Order: sequence, then C-alpha cells, then structure tokens
Amino acid sequence: MTFSPLIDHLIESLRCLPGVGPKSAQRMAFHLLERNREGALVLADSLRAAAEGIGHCRSCRTLSEDEYCALCASGSRDRSLLCVVETPADVLVIEKATGYRGLYFVLMGHLSPLDGIGPRELGMDLLLERLDGGDVREVILATNPTVEGEATAHYISEAARSRGIRATRLAHGVPLGGELEYIDGGTLSHAFADRRDL
Amino acid sequence: MTFSPLIDHLIESLRCLPGVGPKSAQRMAFHLLERNREGALVLADSLRAAAEGIGHCRSCRTLSEDEYCALCASGSRDRSLLCVVETPADVLVIEKATGYRGLYFVLMGHLSPLDGIGPRELGMDLLLERLDGGDVREVILATNPTVEGEATAHYISEAARSRGIRATRLAHGVPLGGELEYIDGGTLSHAFADRRDL
Repeated sequence: MTFSPLIDHLIESLRCLPGVGPKSAQRMAFHLLERNREGALVLADSLRAAAEGIGHCRSCRTLSEDEYCALCASGSRDRSLLCVVETPADVLVIEKATGYRGLYFVLMGHLSPLDGIGPRELGMDLLLERLDGGDVREVILATNPTVEGEATAHYISEAARSRGIRATRLAHGVPLGGELEYIDGGTLSHAFADRRDL
Repeated sequence: MTFSPLIDHLIESLRCLPGVGPKSAQRMAFHLLERNREGALVLADSLRAAAEGIGHCRSCRTLSEDEYCALCASGSRDRSLLCVVETPADVLVIEKATGYRGLYFVLMGHLSPLDGIGPRELGMDLLLERLDGGDVREVILATNPTVEGEATAHYISEAARSRGIRATRLAHGVPLGGELEYIDGGTLSHAFADRRDL
C-alpha cells in the first residue's frame, strides 16, 4: 500500500534534497499539497529556471546565469587581489563580513584525490592563467581550515610563489566571543604561537 | 550583496518547504546546482504534476489524482466499516499496521475553531451523507489523541449515535516496548482503568 502514483513520485523526488529522508519528504509533499500549491508551482518553475539557466562565471567559476558574475563584471574591484575560496557561499560571507575589494576565484570544491577531484576538476588551469596574466599581486587563500582545504591552499601557494606572487592564508586563532576552555587544542596552539603585541 | 537573481529566487522558493530556513535553503540550492541538476528537473516536473493533478477523492476526501482513490474504488473492502482519520498519512499507517478491511474518511485536519476550521472545512456534510446512506454500521474514530482530535472524535460520535450507528475509538494504553517508568500519567491511568483479564 502506498499513496497515489503522483504523490509517491513527488515524495521520491523530494528526497534528492540534502538531509531529506522518507518521513520529511512525505511531510513536505502533504504540506505543499494541502496548504501551499502556489508555492509548489513557484518552486517548480524556479528549479527548472535555475537548473537550465545557471552556469559558471567564465572568470571566477562561481555559479552564475551570466557569462561573467556581478563581481567579475564590476569595474570597481581591485584586480591585483585574488581571493581563492571553495564555494559561492564563501564569497557571500566574505563580502558580508569584510571590507575586501578584490576579486575571487571559486574552486567549487577542494583537492580530494580519493573522490577523483584533482586540479583539473577545480579549474586550476583557469586559475594559473589568471596568475600568469600579470594583474594579480596577492593570492589570498581562503579555503576551509580542513585537511583538504589546507592541502588545496598549499598546492595553490606553491604555484603562486613559483610565479613571484605573494600567497597569504587566513589567520588561525581564537574566535571572538569564545571561551578558551572550550577551544580545541590545535586552534589554541596556533593562537598562542601567533600572539600579537598589544 | 546576494547571489545571482536565479539562485536567490531558487533559495527563496525552497523556503516554502516546511522546516527549511535560509541556511538549509541555500545548502539545498547549491547541492542541486553543483551535484544534481537532473534531480532538480525531475523534482520540478513532479511538483508541477502533483500541484496541478491532485485533487480529493469524491468519496473519502483523501488526496488523489483520480475521482475515487484506490481504496474507495476497490470492490473488496467492507463498506459497513468506516474509519475516520485526520490525514492521508494516517490511512497509510493503519493499512500497514492493521488488518483493517473497511473504508476510510479523511478529514484533512481536525476541528480548530480558532483557526477557522469548523465542520464545513472537514467535509462533515459529506461524512454525514455517508452515515445517512445506510451502508455504515460502525464508525471507527482514529483521529489523533490530542485535544483537537478528541473534540473532533466526540463531534462525529454524537452524529453517528443519533443515527443509531456504533461509534468506536482507538484504545488508549501503554505502547508496546515502552517502560512504565517513562510513560506519561494520563496514558498510564487509561491503561490501568482499561486493564484486561489474562
């Protein structure tokens, strides 16, 4: 015994969303059908428009429906600074939190040889082309502070240095508002070693 | 600073799903765009098909794309038994767990005057028509054991009794596999009062 075919198919399709299991999918399907059919139609349209219309910026590789994303197309950014991040969401948080006025390069992932993700999959050829272009003076490596993120940062820093370009990495240290007692040892050790004069 | 318009619109539309806030919506959007565009298109199609194609069974009110749902259309169910539930999902769990061979009536909610949900919104006229039809000998009230569910069950049981139809309610008691120590007082009190001979 299942529901009718259309409902079963909707529940099954909703499971392509990350973190949605059979029970949540069923709850979502009934919620949409009983209370928000308008929302379901809007969602259907925007899924199709996004899946068919969004590609990658030809300059920084971020997701964008235009050939060049808004940041790369802007004339007011400092082209001598290039911040390398893993995802489009990272661009957004850096734009929101910092006063950074340079450009970005979005890897759309990190080096992970076991998953078959090497330099080619991360668009490294495009990045090296940018570095060879002569505009970039500093590469800011803002990949995640994970094993894969560090390896990716190291790989790019080598390429930058061999071209005489400065490579920098986000500082490690204690987060604002944290309590020392609850900060992991690795972070504390970094913060201690990199202490600043007051 | 936001993402490109298509991405922003997709993130916004995903928020019509229950339990999905801005962060999960963003994660879902990027997951679909980076790893599963095929799934996004399938989901778009099934959302549209369901939102446009699914109505209510003319006999039991459950969600169905056919005029009569599979259970109501079946010739092999006992038409003298009518089980009243709140949602289509309740039909499914009763079909899976019990050997019930009668028919269902799906209220698609419960009485909730403060939310403007009265007898009319629950299709009570259709239910009373069924009871007046003469086929039904017993109404099994399987609304949720909540205040609203009990009130709804009470309302329907009155209507059934005034027509000389037997009205029954699911038994309350200790759930299988539970430990007495952790069962709430109301449930335990019911189980104690309704104790059975061994």
